[in-house]
Amino acid sequence: MKKIEQLQAYLDDQSIDAAFITNPDNVFYVSGFKSNPHERLLGVMIFREAEPFVICPQMEIPDAKAAGWQGDIIGHVDTENAMDVLYRNAQTRGVAIKKIAIEKSHMTVDRYEALSSLFGSPSFVQLDDQLNDMRVIKDEAELEILREAAALADYAIEVAAGTIKEGITEIEVMTEVELALKKRGVTHMSFDTTVLTGSNAASPHGKTGDRKLQQGDLVLFDLGVVHKGYCSDITRTLALGEPDEEQKAVYDVVLQAELAALNAVKPGVTAAELDQTAREVIEKAGYGDYFTHRLGHGLGVSVHEFPSIHGSNDMKMEPGMVFTLEPGIYVPGKVGVRIEDDVALTENGVEVLTKFPKELQII
Amino acid sequence: MKKIEQLQAYLDDQSIDAAFITNPDNVFYVSGFKSNPHERLLGVMIFREAEPFVICPQMEIPDAKAAGWQGDIIGHVDTENAMDVLYRNAQTRGVAIKKIAIEKSHMTVDRYEALSSLFGSPSFVQLDDQLNDMRVIKDEAELEILREAAALADYAIEVAAGTIKEGITEIEVMTEVELALKKRGVTHMSFDTTVLTGSNAASPHGKTGDRKLQQGDLVLFDLGVVHKGYCSDITRTLALGEPDEEQKAVYDVVLQAELAALNAVKPGVTAAELDQTAREVIEKAGYGDYFTHRLGHGLGVSVHEFPSIHGSNDMKMEPGMVFTLEPGIYVPGKVGVRIEDDVALTENGVEVLTKFPKELQII
Repeated sequence: MKKIEQLQAYLDDQSIDAAFITNPDNVFYVSGFKSNPHERLLGVMIFREAEPFVICPQMEIPDAKAAGWQGDIIGHVDTENAMDVLYRNAQTRGVAIKKIAIEKSHMTVDRYEALSSLFGSPSFVQLDDQLNDMRVIKDEAELEILREAAALADYAIEVAAGTIKEGITEIEVMTEVELALKKRGVTHMSFDTTVLTGSNAASPHGKTGDRKLQQGDLVLFDLGVVHKGYCSDITRTLALGEPDEEQKAVYDVVLQAELAALNAVKPGVTAAELDQTAREVIEKAGYGDYFTHRLGHGLGVSVHEFPSIHGSNDMKMEPGMVFTLEPGIYVPGKVGVRIEDDVALTENGVEVLTKFPKELQII
Repeated sequence: MKKIEQLQAYLDDQSIDAAFITNPDNVFYVSGFKSNPHERLLGVMIFREAEPFVICPQMEIPDAKAAGWQGDIIGHVDTENAMDVLYRNAQTRGVAIKKIAIEKSHMTVDRYEALSSLFGSPSFVQLDDQLNDMRVIKDEAELEILREAAALADYAIEVAAGTIKEGITEIEVMTEVELALKKRGVTHMSFDTTVLTGSNAASPHGKTGDRKLQQGDLVLFDLGVVHKGYCSDITRTLALGEPDEEQKAVYDVVLQAELAALNAVKPGVTAAELDQTAREVIEKAGYGDYFTHRLGHGLGVSVHEFPSIHGSNDMKMEPGMVFTLEPGIYVPGKVGVRIEDDVALTENGVEVLTKFPKELQII
């Protein structure tokens, strides 16, 4: 309940009476209960001066208990209006609620209107920044889980390297990789596993398909696992057979860009400066137009969280932050290369969590 | 663009100037472009009297084109405020926007506030009902895809029946089933595949785990595929070895409940009446307290959509509706059985899309 106490202290400091948290990632972060409620209501209601409760579909109550939540758990069934159930149970706390904090980047308009109506038009403030500020700094327990998640991503790339061969399709390679992970107990990937080959890899957002691998292909893998509620995210680009000069040249530029950014990570450097460091390497090599996305993103309970490592973000890097560095070059129809590591900035320096070699591996 | 024209006619009828659609399932339904933008902005802006456009991350523009969207596609990059990009491009349409329709069950408060601010405090109305009304009635092309999706779910249960044996774990069975589907080109399941055995199956919301199958287990499978953008959803409970009397009795009650509901499906019957029909069978048999969820849900682009088949929904069944019927009995710690079919009500009568036998299969 440490996170709950931190939030109660924040509510007290800001003179906010209550907070209602419904983003499943934040619900997990503050309560330990991970669930995807689909369209049903799942939330944690926190009060400045009363005990918090979890509200969830009736049938998930045993799961919430099993997850270790110590406080009250309020169930609702499909024939009830879940927001009414929320209101009635909030009333039992006997505290006046005139100011409520919500996640404006997650709460839907209809729930917002229902809260407004039920609670008599309280004032609303956003809780997103506070939750992001808390989540962006990982403690040692979180970092240890992220290390384990990254090790599973490394293992996936090892399996991938052992699987690619002429004639196998992208989907078949993906299936083998995910099967190996399942055998190690991985139940969820952090996003759809991506295997892109040849000119398919030249789209930064391409989809794994039926293309058969050929000698001379670069094969781009982008994947990650969810492990104990936390995500990893790795990209490696492997060569099937001897690459040509352009492939080698592009690979080398991406590698140099990634190493330059990695070398620049330290407390106080801004996200924008990191992005710029990698981008300059790629621009100088003449591929600037083909690096079409941000350098990276924070990593934790969500696979994309703060800090966003892009050119307009002045957020300063601090110990406890964990994020990806993933420069890429995509020359349409020709060649695509991306290299992505999970990186932690700690009190002891920079720790690269993903350890599969970054130098071009020729299979 | 038929769906767009329908929506434009609706806007005209309701004197609404524009609609902004951001639920990815609705974006797919109206545009043909399926994408999961995570935290990034993806939407379709439709005007009463001007051409619509898609707005998406810059790197997804080729995918939107490839999906067949004929209109303008506006890209945005991570360093821009995507809502500003939306506003500037809406301005180019040269129409006054004083009333905007949005999906209140999907749009987040921060985007709502941004729209309100950028467009000068227009009035907002909800578009959810109209979209649900359109989506709830499937045309022949959609029905044909749903038939194919259901056939893949049937195939999954066939594979499952051929895989279960003493000593294999729930996760191993799940892996085999998903592998077989991948080999048939299935890239996404419509939700996490559920394999629950023995007393684990006695939780209606249990999670697939490491439990090893034993002789005498009932094994509950709940799964579905996404096929051409549409979902299937099947549950079958198989017996590994000869079931005991209680297992057989519970199974038979669930089967009779499902058949009773199926028999009651016809134009004009309400969702509540269908739910009640199945529930009465289970209550009469003395298991009423153990049927803890609604009877079913609509099925289409989303795995849970309208109509919701529960005891307080007076929506009348109409030709074109496709939905699940899935009664279940869960006696905690002892036995869990659920049987779920995908059902279409058509002009020609009731069509059960899932065809794997419902009678207890003893493996």
